[in-house]
This record gives sequence, structure tokens and C-alpha cells, in this order.
Amino acid sequence: MPYDRTNIFAKILRGDIPCVKVYEDDHTLAFMDVMPQAEGHTLVVPKEDAENIFELSPDSAAHVMRTAQKVAKAVKTATGASGVMLMQLNGKAAGQSVFHIHMHVIPRQHGLELGFHERDMVSADVLEPIAARIRAALSS
Amino acid sequence: MPYDRTNIFAKILRGDIPCVKVYEDDHTLAFMDVMPQAEGHTLVVPKEDAENIFELSPDSAAHVMRTAQKVAKAVKTATGASGVMLMQLNGKAAGQSVFHIHMHVIPRQHGLELGFHERDMVSADVLEPIAARIRAALSS
Repeated sequence: MPYDRTNIFAKILRGDIPCVKVYEDDHTLAFMDVMPQAEGHTLVVPKEDAENIFELSPDSAAHVMRTAQKVAKAVKTATGASGVMLMQLNGKAAGQSVFHIHMHVIPRQHGLELGFHERDMVSADVLEPIAARIRAALSS
Repeated sequence: MPYDRTNIFAKILRGDIPCVKVYEDDHTLAFMDVMPQAEGHTLVVPKEDAENIFELSPDSAAHVMRTAQKVAKAVKTATGASGVMLMQLNGKAAGQSVFHIHMHVIPRQHGLELGFHERDMVSADVLEPIAARIRAALSS
């Protein structure tokens, strides 16, 4: 399937719609998930147009992981979570809902269940305080 | 917490206990999960001693992702799955149970629920036929 440039992450990457950004470099962008499964739920996307891991270049895949690692450390610091889950879903059968490849970085606390994804949209001003803590952790 | 060299993946990396291997290079090893959540469930581990993403070197993180991408393509081909999930758990709170960092590569089919991890152990001769198909896909 050809890459669909109208997907929401493509629009974010082009600057057509806003995001609550925590990190950006030449190859990747990281921003808060607007339907967080836990406070601090962050997404890492490559700037390369690719629907999934099968289509992404190996170099971009490596860049995504390097950024996800930085973000995972910052999310842990910012949230105080004792655990962090990285998750990357390819295909509708795996639960992928936005067809630009993305890596979920989700803080986990013992006993706190994950929320359902794609049910409750959270506004930017709700996301901003935790995003600010993640940015601070990334730059420290 | 210092890295525990007696964990089961450290033993597999040292060759002290066997695994059903599908791929190996200078930096990573990929083998079948013995408690698969779906047929074709494969693990990718770095050869570097590291408990989790917080301790792993950025270069090893990138190598893990490059190998996970190769394995994900091969698992998709070998199983005919329409989706593939990558998952990497850090800390008990996130569900990590073996304390050598590992990336799960799990094929997903519409309507097929994931099995529980760590409940049913599968023997090497049950894993070997799907492992052979994954190896064939990796080398084609």
C-alpha cells in the first residue's frame, strides 16, 4: 500500500497541525500521544515517509530506537515510573491506527492498568506539564 | 542494579543452554520465545550485557532495532501474519521477567488473541518448524 501523506503524523511532521513536542533531531520527532494510555505516554516517529517497519529504511529504524531510548530515560525521570514499555505496532491486525510508523514509549507503574488507547482525547494544556518535565529530563 | 550474569538469556548468549536460533550477527542474537504468545514469537537480544533500555549503549539499541526489523519481515513472511508487534519491556512494573534486555517480535492476526506469556512452555521440536521458516525468510 502506498504511503498516505494525509495521515495525522505526516501532518504533524509537515507542521500542518500542532503537537506537544518533547524532542526533535534530523531524523526523528517525539511528541505526546493525545490519547495517552498512561501519563507521559510519548510517541517517536521517523521523518522518513513509511507506513510500518516493513517499509522503513534500516537507518531510520535505528534512529527511531536511539530516540526512543533517550525518550524512555526522560519519561522514566519525568514520571517517576519504575517501568517503561516500548511498543511498535505494524498493521491493523497488530492494532496500528495511524499509518505512519511510530514507537510508543509508555511509563508503567505496578498496579496501574493501562488505559484504552483511542478513547479519550486529551488537550494540549493537559499534556504540557508532563511534556515540560520530559523536555527538562532530555536536556539535563 | 548490577547486571546478573546468571539470567537465562546471558546463559543462552554464552552457549551454556540451548535456544532455537533464527539469526545471529556480531551484535545481536534472535531466537524463538519458549513461551510464545503466538506462533512465530521471536526474541532479539543484544550481546552487550545490559538489563534494560536505560543501561544499554545507544549503538546496541540501534543494532537491536536493525535486527528486529529483519526478524519482523521474516516472521511476517514465515507466518503469513498481517500484523507484527514489537514490544520491549523495562522493569518488573512493565512486565519484564528476564533481566537481559530483549525485544519481542510477535506476529498478529485479526481475531486471534495473544496467549498469556510465561504460562505454557513449548519444546524445541515444536518451535523448530516455524524457526526453520523464519530462517528461510531471513536468508531469501
